[in-house]
Amino acid sequence: MDLINIKSPTDLKGLSIAELTDLTAQARQALMTKVSEHGGHVGPPMGAAEMIMALHYVFNSPVDKIVYDVSHQSYVHKMVTGRALAFLDHDHYDDVTGYTDPTESEHDFFNIGHTSTSISLASGLATARNLKGDSENIIAIIGDGSLSGGEAFEGLDYAATLDSNMIIIVNDNDQSIAENHGGLYRGLRELRETNGESSNNIFKSLGLDYRFVADGNDLETLINVFEDVKDINHPIVLHVVTQKGKGYAIAEQHKEAFHWTMPFDLETGKLKEEANGPTYVGTIANYLMDQIKADPMVVAIIAGTPGGFGFNAKWRKEAGKQYIDVGIAEEHAIAMSSGIAKNGAKPVFSVFSTFLQRTYDQLVQDLSVNNNSAVIINHDASVYGMNDVTHLGFFDIPMLTSIPNLVYLAPTNNEELLAMTKYAVHQHEHPIAIRVPVGKFISTGVPDTTDYSILHKSEATRHGERIALLGLGNFYHLANQVADELAKDGIDATVVNPKFASGLDEELLEELKANHSVVFTLEDGVVEGGWGQRVASFYGLSAMRVKNYGIAKEFHDRYDAAELLRENGISVEQIVNDVKCMLR
Amino acid sequence: MDLINIKSPTDLKGLSIAELTDLTAQARQALMTKVSEHGGHVGPPMGAAEMIMALHYVFNSPVDKIVYDVSHQSYVHKMVTGRALAFLDHDHYDDVTGYTDPTESEHDFFNIGHTSTSISLASGLATARNLKGDSENIIAIIGDGSLSGGEAFEGLDYAATLDSNMIIIVNDNDQSIAENHGGLYRGLRELRETNGESSNNIFKSLGLDYRFVADGNDLETLINVFEDVKDINHPIVLHVVTQKGKGYAIAEQHKEAFHWTMPFDLETGKLKEEANGPTYVGTIANYLMDQIKADPMVVAIIAGTPGGFGFNAKWRKEAGKQYIDVGIAEEHAIAMSSGIAKNGAKPVFSVFSTFLQRTYDQLVQDLSVNNNSAVIINHDASVYGMNDVTHLGFFDIPMLTSIPNLVYLAPTNNEELLAMTKYAVHQHEHPIAIRVPVGKFISTGVPDTTDYSILHKSEATRHGERIALLGLGNFYHLANQVADELAKDGIDATVVNPKFASGLDEELLEELKANHSVVFTLEDGVVEGGWGQRVASFYGLSAMRVKNYGIAKEFHDRYDAAELLRENGISVEQIVNDVKCMLR
Repeated sequence: MDLINIKSPTDLKGLSIAELTDLTAQARQALMTKVSEHGGHVGPPMGAAEMIMALHYVFNSPVDKIVYDVSHQSYVHKMVTGRALAFLDHDHYDDVTGYTDPTESEHDFFNIGHTSTSISLASGLATARNLKGDSENIIAIIGDGSLSGGEAFEGLDYAATLDSNMIIIVNDNDQSIAENHGGLYRGLRELRETNGESSNNIFKSLGLDYRFVADGNDLETLINVFEDVKDINHPIVLHVVTQKGKGYAIAEQHKEAFHWTMPFDLETGKLKEEANGPTYVGTIANYLMDQIKADPMVVAIIAGTPGGFGFNAKWRKEAGKQYIDVGIAEEHAIAMSSGIAKNGAKPVFSVFSTFLQRTYDQLVQDLSVNNNSAVIINHDASVYGMNDVTHLGFFDIPMLTSIPNLVYLAPTNNEELLAMTKYAVHQHEHPIAIRVPVGKFISTGVPDTTDYSILHKSEATRHGERIALLGLGNFYHLANQVADELAKDGIDATVVNPKFASGLDEELLEELKANHSVVFTLEDGVVEGGWGQRVASFYGLSAMRVKNYGIAKEFHDRYDAAELLRENGISVEQIVNDVKCMLR
Repeated sequence: MDLINIKSPTDLKGLSIAELTDLTAQARQALMTKVSEHGGHVGPPMGAAEMIMALHYVFNSPVDKIVYDVSHQSYVHKMVTGRALAFLDHDHYDDVTGYTDPTESEHDFFNIGHTSTSISLASGLATARNLKGDSENIIAIIGDGSLSGGEAFEGLDYAATLDSNMIIIVNDNDQSIAENHGGLYRGLRELRETNGESSNNIFKSLGLDYRFVADGNDLETLINVFEDVKDINHPIVLHVVTQKGKGYAIAEQHKEAFHWTMPFDLETGKLKEEANGPTYVGTIANYLMDQIKADPMVVAIIAGTPGGFGFNAKWRKEAGKQYIDVGIAEEHAIAMSSGIAKNGAKPVFSVFSTFLQRTYDQLVQDLSVNNNSAVIINHDASVYGMNDVTHLGFFDIPMLTSIPNLVYLAPTNNEELLAMTKYAVHQHEHPIAIRVPVGKFISTGVPDTTDYSILHKSEATRHGERIALLGLGNFYHLANQVADELAKDGIDATVVNPKFASGLDEELLEELKANHSVVFTLEDGVVEGGWGQRVASFYGLSAMRVKNYGIAKEFHDRYDAAELLRENGISVEQIVNDVKCMLR
């Protein structure tokens, strides 16, 4: 049986173990080939290949419902639910997303990309099933790494109260993106080492039935276990041990590098295009390491994604107690940061914008109400950041800038990034977040000596008249490009680098009134509730006209950034055109 | 020794057990008297009285640091740290807040009012202590109810990795605000019933040391235990069984009613002022119960606070499986709601605005990215809501209205509230949140027949010229009052009921341009990132002038709503005055 001929899980039903084994090998081969050419997750889907094959062999999807946590392990699921072509033919690679997606298939129940959600989502499906009087199996698959997020615990706690079918598969490959952190993992290790017999069993302690499966990469074992628990009348945890990256020796060995990767050479595992040259991430990482060495009070905090921020294994070791990976536990990261700052040390939490959302209440309550001077380095907060609908990072400005006390800085180049980070790390007045620039690395070569303790002070860097272009963070350069174009036509625009997203420089805005009639705000994010609308509000009663550029409030999946911006009227050409129309 | 003479915990040090017992009785008496006259929390501080007295007897605060979860149990802590007068003299009742507050005392480390945060905050203090090379004791006190929140689990998971002093007291009174829900509580009960010997021990399963203390209301026992663990060199959980409301028989019996209460008669326990007359909360509750009876697919979801939404014990029983209290687990509540809606049932999650913040990422990812038609009834989203700095509910508009797909409705009276709720419950198109009006109950007596499936359609209810007053939700009435006043001076203002907070009625806004020159937006919440600024942005390039009324971005504690509004220029008089100035 060829993988390409599997049109739905029913095509698996009559197969022998040998045939299934062969199909799994085909799936792995397809997966490796595609990801090596296209980039994507390697370790999670490779390790879960037998599990997914066995699930679809035993259960009856989509009547029985499988919910994947993060869903980056669902590639083989996609292959056996009618989407094999997207893994076998490179012209069709982009037919599918890297996560489950209900618009692709009735076998996918949620668009999911953040961790720790599967048990709650699945228990919702189970609750509705019970209300309807139906009886299908509901299955949640969650990795050991994802268990460190509080939402997973809340889900387990609730699932334990269901007196009906619910199968929770803990896919334990003893690895998060990097190594696991937390007391939880001591318990899981004990369970692995005792064949599930250890009395320190978090699942049982929550009242859940429990079964240990030592070989989670053996098809026959899995099929037998799944047949045993199919139609079970109460919730059960299957603790299944798998090997991350299974079947690709280089990924088995280099688990962190091959969790997710850019295109690579299958034979050597080497990236096809090595990143080189300086980066903003590198600037922050180098500065933080220097600070860690210079000051025992500085502590770098990360929630499960050290690689994204330059903290490789060697650095992590070097930083010692001044480096803390809390697991995928952003809520704890922020609350703990508040406590660290309160007791006189300096926490610096690096996070991707899309995941900072996971800790909104802690940002408000634990941190900002208490006005403790923790630092948040917010990465990929940009239309140019991750572009999966589950990983958008450009909703940060409305989220962060409506929180009192929290200062949000928006550097436009490497020198500003460094100066702002230095200021943030050395001050003791406010919680401060920094919106790390995204895109082309821009360095002025001239150290930034701005005193950022003067909050919400902007800088007019180009003095013109009639037209003022206020370009926040990343989009400061866009403002300059527009001004350059306008200059060609003899239009002399003012350009402002606002520097702060959390407030307005009202003095400068007042001054602009003297010889300007239109202000254009440009921000690299959602426009509604954003920074520019505050400027519009400020000028509301004046004669100043204001146009706010930003992305309209909508979800987008795997978009092209330049195209999305154009759709929102944001390109040098369009803005220049708008300005000219306005001046006519 | 009289309580009033205790100026700091050092005054406790030399006392005998008999004297401490007497002081505890005085503290309880003071607490009951104050709360009966003033309102406040009863059950939590009464149950923790001996524990707090013993802690301050054994440990050396503020060098040793005690962090309270929610901190509503800290009244006795305040009494023995120099603030007894605030509990003994009714002229001084308002000298202290109902929560810990660092501006009040060096013995208070955080302003805390949301649950599940203490372990993370305390582990931050411990982490900084370790970096500094200090050696004080760090103590977190968390109630069993608060353990259901994911942040508490994240904190436990991290605390287990500390190889240094940290004392986590689980204050187990077998009660949340209402009864406990979740598998966790089965485990805690087993531990209580086995004197801590049950093998189902969540704390041990996370690798934490553990000690069971059966009588948590016995001073001598507590002192001995605390002396044993003082200066311990690793993290330990003390599982201490206490009685909620201990010492006030009526509170011991009616645990839910006396978790927090308005002023009451000490002898009978009866509220001094019974609420009467119809309420918005009642409208929703009645409608939900009717729906639950009529449709087996409707399910009411609550995160630990049923009483606030009219779901008393009788109703909860009556609703059966169609009522789910998830514990204090808002993240799970939203994710599960998404799953319930996905599988064809209708979840209606009632929540206080301040706690909806706890589930921001689930609102975005689990719910809105997936566009499932769950309903959120958002209570106390108003300047007139809870006014403790830890419980502010007026930051909801920026938070919710920058999320795509999520529809946010803002009714202005009882009929609209009912019509909007009906629409939300019966539709299958969008996740919908409803901003329940706060304040005076207003009923038109005329059923609202608006078709709310036409999204973001506003209604001009008064047609004037030059001036348009757009009053969102609660503030629609303010707009009308302003219009009434203006009419007295012959100024004929237009009044608009926007009805939707999540978008603009651009057609209506366009029409206003014809014969209006100034638009005033009025919203009952923070102005920055709010609804009115979208209106300002909409009109940015036009000749229309716009003024946005709302609360400036700042934290406020125990404020007077009318006064805070006046400080922000929001009163009929001030707005009328602004309008007249503008027209001059």
